[in-house]
Amino acid sequence: VNAEIITVGEEILTGLVVNTNAAFLGESLVHAGLDVRWVTSVGDREEDIEGAFRTALGRARVVVVTGGLGPTHDDVTKKAASAVFHSPAVLRKEVLDRIEAFFKRRGKPMPPSNESQAWLPDKAEVLENPVGTAPGLLFSEEGHLFFLLPGVPAEAERLVRDAVLPRLAGLTGGLTCRSKRLKTIRIAESELSDRLQGFHTRFPDVRLAFLPQREGVVLRLSLYGPDAAFCGARLADGAAFIYKHAGAWIYAEDDDTIESVVAKLLISRQRTVSTAESCTGGLVAHKLTNVPGSSDYFRMGIVAYSNASKVRLLGVPEEILQRAGAVSPETAAAMAEGARRAAGTDIGISTTGIAGPSGGTPEKPVGLVHVAFADRDRTVTEKHIFFQDRLWNKERFAGVALDLLRRSLLSKNPNSS
Amino acid sequence: VNAEIITVGEEILTGLVVNTNAAFLGESLVHAGLDVRWVTSVGDREEDIEGAFRTALGRARVVVVTGGLGPTHDDVTKKAASAVFHSPAVLRKEVLDRIEAFFKRRGKPMPPSNESQAWLPDKAEVLENPVGTAPGLLFSEEGHLFFLLPGVPAEAERLVRDAVLPRLAGLTGGLTCRSKRLKTIRIAESELSDRLQGFHTRFPDVRLAFLPQREGVVLRLSLYGPDAAFCGARLADGAAFIYKHAGAWIYAEDDDTIESVVAKLLISRQRTVSTAESCTGGLVAHKLTNVPGSSDYFRMGIVAYSNASKVRLLGVPEEILQRAGAVSPETAAAMAEGARRAAGTDIGISTTGIAGPSGGTPEKPVGLVHVAFADRDRTVTEKHIFFQDRLWNKERFAGVALDLLRRSLLSKNPNSS
Repeated sequence: VNAEIITVGEEILTGLVVNTNAAFLGESLVHAGLDVRWVTSVGDREEDIEGAFRTALGRARVVVVTGGLGPTHDDVTKKAASAVFHSPAVLRKEVLDRIEAFFKRRGKPMPPSNESQAWLPDKAEVLENPVGTAPGLLFSEEGHLFFLLPGVPAEAERLVRDAVLPRLAGLTGGLTCRSKRLKTIRIAESELSDRLQGFHTRFPDVRLAFLPQREGVVLRLSLYGPDAAFCGARLADGAAFIYKHAGAWIYAEDDDTIESVVAKLLISRQRTVSTAESCTGGLVAHKLTNVPGSSDYFRMGIVAYSNASKVRLLGVPEEILQRAGAVSPETAAAMAEGARRAAGTDIGISTTGIAGPSGGTPEKPVGLVHVAFADRDRTVTEKHIFFQDRLWNKERFAGVALDLLRRSLLSKNPNSS
Repeated sequence: VNAEIITVGEEILTGLVVNTNAAFLGESLVHAGLDVRWVTSVGDREEDIEGAFRTALGRARVVVVTGGLGPTHDDVTKKAASAVFHSPAVLRKEVLDRIEAFFKRRGKPMPPSNESQAWLPDKAEVLENPVGTAPGLLFSEEGHLFFLLPGVPAEAERLVRDAVLPRLAGLTGGLTCRSKRLKTIRIAESELSDRLQGFHTRFPDVRLAFLPQREGVVLRLSLYGPDAAFCGARLADGAAFIYKHAGAWIYAEDDDTIESVVAKLLISRQRTVSTAESCTGGLVAHKLTNVPGSSDYFRMGIVAYSNASKVRLLGVPEEILQRAGAVSPETAAAMAEGARRAAGTDIGISTTGIAGPSGGTPEKPVGLVHVAFADRDRTVTEKHIFFQDRLWNKERFAGVALDLLRRSLLSKNPNSS
């Protein structure tokens, strides 16, 4: 069953706000087993809204529209629907009563402009909105379901739950869609793709999408099936295949993040950690402390931006800084060991590199980072080279530092991945 | 000049990610004077992409497409463009060389699948991508400009700046849209709205939007006009009105951030700064070091999460921690002074608070933060109370700490704003 989402409002077109309604609607409809193939945004021009409605009716069986149901002059979604469905507006007394009651509850008289919200196309079913003044509408014609919802996210979400999803049940003949995400790091999208080439032959029914994100490429598996158990089993098989061919680069699944995975490992192994950061400037500590309860394992972080602070706070030998330079495996190692010592923690991790845009040389280019892990038994360093952009580099540097911590916690030999 | 934005990729349709590319593109094109009337998202089905391309060419003079230029099987944007423009793919040697060089710089061989990124429709102009492997493409036909850009936001943004905007100049026959953003902090949206009630009567031609963001509410003024000078003057008048009524809460304009504003002040006043963070966990240092060249003013940051580290690294007296507690003005002050002393910088700033979700008490609820500023002459503390969400609280805490630094740098008395 094809579905289209249409959002009405200038603020999406001009980039004033990101389209969170579309994301929420997409997720809800896909989960209900629909195949969402189009998301269209138009502004407040009646002609554009009408055009979008006609196009959608020509290709999608379920259409969900948000926005343009408010009481002001630029709210013309209903007018466009009246034109497209040949359905003139009539005053719905019960809707007007409800709007007046809504204001009365808040101790205010209804502003005159709100009356317009009770003038609704005569063919539409009214979907009651318990959290606002604009009701939703449903046109059912020739097998199409065409929903109009208010644009306020909280109101749209409520109506999706209360009115849209119940009316979709049965439409897909029990078909449901389930998905699973596997998050990778330290591997290029192209290499990952090459490693997973056999996937499509083995799992022709499972969609595999490659989604590049800040820290690395996220793999999303999804399929439609008769029920959640069937889909879950199939996704587990697909995930097992991916773990077999690219498991070394997978650090988390679904809503887990590198920091939440590391947090669980630190807690289960009862280890404490401290950080010594140069190029990431505090981002590693920030990520570690994004997890609620992080004070259980995180004690202290030092952002040693200057060489002097590397020597003074972390005890990095001047000799190493002079011989190998601040951006070197030796300095990274000394920083991790110094953090561990200064904080009295089980583990110290460190970053030193060149985030850019300036400061690079042919031998040490922008994008170069050395990260280190130190505990009682060993010190391990790793080198990575990324790209040009400073903020992205900081994110990627922090990602590989936390991933080194993750692998070190998992294995006796973190370089054996 | 009508414009359409098309984003390609399942992740938008299924709600996995919000469409930030569309927001960025919309803002850029509107700013260039274009009338963005449609934003369309389709998935990875070639037929849907082709359909979207044909529809767009039938109604928009400028079309900007992002996504689907990667090296994997589900990247079919180029194929769809080849079909629509009757332009078969040919191997572009110079593009292949560039991709190979890209990997060589990172010390890796090019994975085989990346070669596909050098097979490009023969009629398209190649738009070089300095920050990734997928080049952009431009088809110019019958007065239409049809751009294909990579979907990775940093790459799309770079290509918009370097390749798209320069080619749009002159296209709009002089009509332009200009906008100005004024960024506020420490004031609620409703209070801001009340203070600015006279705006619409004084400036009926200027749109004023209230955009709640992480650190505070951003005010966006925009208008269309015959030329940049006219628009600029009108926006300057509007901004002056806003400064008059709410200037105390404005910390930056347009693309400036709290950290870029602070960076400029620190450099112009030749001051150095260090940080002592508890609840923000490194975020203040991370923000300060997001600005290129931050080593000119930032020396060292300490994330003192445990009380022991506050005593040991920052010299906070045990007596203060016991009497006033870790979350107190006294501790914040001692932390800022300790950071300044430990780092040998002109200024120290600090944060101590309760980010949540747990750890709150009736006297010290989740959302409470004390921030402090210390220099040679004075130590100033400030108290703020925000909300429940941990990540948002960290952002807001860091924001008010940096805003205290900003006001302190601007005035002899930072509490006189």
